Amino acid sequence: MSTPSIQRTIQSYIPDLIAFRHDLHKHPEVSNEEANTAQRVKDFLAPYQPSRVLEGLGGHGLAYCYEGKEPGPTIMLRCELDALPITEINTFAHRSTNDDVSHKCGHDGHMSILAGVARLLHEHPVEKGQVILLFQPAEETGEGARRVLQDEAFLNIKPDFAFALHNLPNYPEGHIIFRPGPMACASRGLRIKIHGKTSHAAWPEDGKNPALPMCRIIEGLTLLPAAPSLQHCYNNVSVVKARLGCEGFGTIPGEAEVAATLRSDSEEAILFLIDQSTLLIDQWLAIHGFEYQVTWSDIFALSENAPEACDILTNAAERAGLPTHIMEEPLRASEDFGVFTQQFPGALFGLGNGFQKPQLHNPDYDFPDQLIEKGITIFWSILQECLDVDPLE
Amino acid sequence: MSTPSIQRTIQSYIPDLIAFRHDLHKHPEVSNEEANTAQRVKDFLAPYQPSRVLEGLGGHGLAYCYEGKEPGPTIMLRCELDALPITEINTFAHRSTNDDVSHKCGHDGHMSILAGVARLLHEHPVEKGQVILLFQPAEETGEGARRVLQDEAFLNIKPDFAFALHNLPNYPEGHIIFRPGPMACASRGLRIKIHGKTSHAAWPEDGKNPALPMCRIIEGLTLLPAAPSLQHCYNNVSVVKARLGCEGFGTIPGEAEVAATLRSDSEEAILFLIDQSTLLIDQWLAIHGFEYQVTWSDIFALSENAPEACDILTNAAERAGLPTHIMEEPLRASEDFGVFTQQFPGALFGLGNGFQKPQLHNPDYDFPDQLIEKGITIFWSILQECLDVDPLE
Repeated sequence: MSTPSIQRTIQSYIPDLIAFRHDLHKHPEVSNEEANTAQRVKDFLAPYQPSRVLEGLGGHGLAYCYEGKEPGPTIMLRCELDALPITEINTFAHRSTNDDVSHKCGHDGHMSILAGVARLLHEHPVEKGQVILLFQPAEETGEGARRVLQDEAFLNIKPDFAFALHNLPNYPEGHIIFRPGPMACASRGLRIKIHGKTSHAAWPEDGKNPALPMCRIIEGLTLLPAAPSLQHCYNNVSVVKARLGCEGFGTIPGEAEVAATLRSDSEEAILFLIDQSTLLIDQWLAIHGFEYQVTWSDIFALSENAPEACDILTNAAERAGLPTHIMEEPLRASEDFGVFTQQFPGALFGLGNGFQKPQLHNPDYDFPDQLIEKGITIFWSILQECLDVDPLE
Repeated sequence: MSTPSIQRTIQSYIPDLIAFRHDLHKHPEVSNEEANTAQRVKDFLAPYQPSRVLEGLGGHGLAYCYEGKEPGPTIMLRCELDALPITEINTFAHRSTNDDVSHKCGHDGHMSILAGVARLLHEHPVEKGQVILLFQPAEETGEGARRVLQDEAFLNIKPDFAFALHNLPNYPEGHIIFRPGPMACASRGLRIKIHGKTSHAAWPEDGKNPALPMCRIIEGLTLLPAAPSLQHCYNNVSVVKARLGCEGFGTIPGEAEVAATLRSDSEEAILFLIDQSTLLIDQWLAIHGFEYQVTWSDIFALSENAPEACDILTNAAERAGLPTHIMEEPLRASEDFGVFTQQFPGALFGLGNGFQKPQLHNPDYDFPDQLIEKGITIFWSILQECLDVDPLE
């Protein structure tokens, strides 16, 4: 009796992995609060112990390190622990049990895929080099990758290549979608609080109404992408929030707040947008003589794919029989995996969900379970390309 | 034993009137909800019945009509029933028992003054003509005077002169403050709701962000008073509120709201400001292709004082020994008494509160009880000027 092929082995894991995915889906946690999610991962992987486990990486992150006996390349595969502050409207049995939080980005599916790879690595160990399976915290807020990289426990890990996949609605099911160079836009969250002074509306001269500088800043920010030097790439600044004063016609407002999202498919351009934003905020508020605070958050680096990692991906997809699709433009949405690919060669790639599926972040979204097998397959094929793991077939 | 002078009689009323004022202060009601306040007035005035009482005028308004036996002029004196949605911070015994509402404009004092005049008219009836004591509802929202005038029960009342006083902080105590012509600014409340479309912040082209038209409108409104044709008078447009989108950097906002207060000391100019506001809102939102709604509220007419009413006031003040002060500029704050003086000759005048007193609408404001006697005195002196009531001394 011959041993079953890797592909058949993967198929035999699927019922357990779907059950695991549904369990994760039922118990979602937002960024930086993924303690129970990390525990569920540890419980599921308990029978499939690696050489070592790093815990508490950049918060609740976990790294499962499967080391071969001989030296060789380090390959990192990454998934995400966190869910979103979105109320799920699905009614299926595995719907979120947390009213305000749900896995609307499919990170539950990404974790199941990496759990399958872990079991496979336990049962079919690498001979040389090592595989790092990273369960990263706080991807949605753009904090997790940076914190993992800054974590002392992670300092000695220097992947030769890093890969991550993301399920992508509105692409053919199981297709591998990517491009060399910019893969997902850089973005930033900008918040400005302007402090004026209230007064009775009959004596506006006794107050300091921040309405005009607020408008100048909104217009200035919105116009930034029109700068001639930015016309070679995609750039957008969208004001997502403005607040001035409160109810009642009798009071001159004393406070204003503006929030904006900056986005670009060029790291150079987003730095230019940030500089110009800071400059115009400083100038307008100096001209009008207002106190103010500026804070930056939701900092997502450009996700850039290394050409050599794309070559590995192309070969791996071909071997696995998964069609590839080279994107004409980067993904507009941001991914903090870009922080890793700034340090290590790597690639973020999409795994097509099929058509007429709910978009990511929509309240009726659910990760398609049929992608679990395809996800494990492409990751294993990548490992086969880089290391000497047992072949897929 | 001679009968006491009117002045002494007024003085004898004061303890009761202060108690009445404190009772009203303890039980304030906002505009259009003055049912219990009207009942308190009726209870207090029950012993001092006039020829007839009109009830439910324009809401909870009351008119006490004291008619002489012979024909003659009709003189209307007006006070207000309503309090403000302001939380009182005073701790004295007569502080408001309603956490969210208090008499921060002194309408409790104005009612006490008119209650004193009512008692005086009951005990010293007019021989000819009649006196209408109007307890008007909903002054603070600019609705009450208009509704009273439109009330069928009020249609037959055509005052030859109408007078109203308002206590005024930061003028010498008991001084009579007024000017012929514009006495208190006209004002309007403008509210604009703009309907765009939300989208994921990564695809702003799928949404319709109202940020830019919102800013154009705020700037356009703020600049309106710079129109050359308005430079002869006081004009101000203050944006008091703006709302765009909600929390989160991931969503393009779909809705915006702007509210502004328009103010002018010229009726012609405020109509120009209204026309121009409407025009610029229509134009900007047509250019940007947004659906929207515009609503006008808090409509205060210019309060204009008739020269002949000012002459009566001047003579009345002189007889009563109350110094007069002719203002250089109209009051910035609006008063809906202007609706009456558009129809009947009349005058709105200030009664000085003294210095270092809390401003109107401030949370620590309280009507100065020592003004009650002076208020009754000036009103009685006006009646003496117009009718044949018993002389003050």
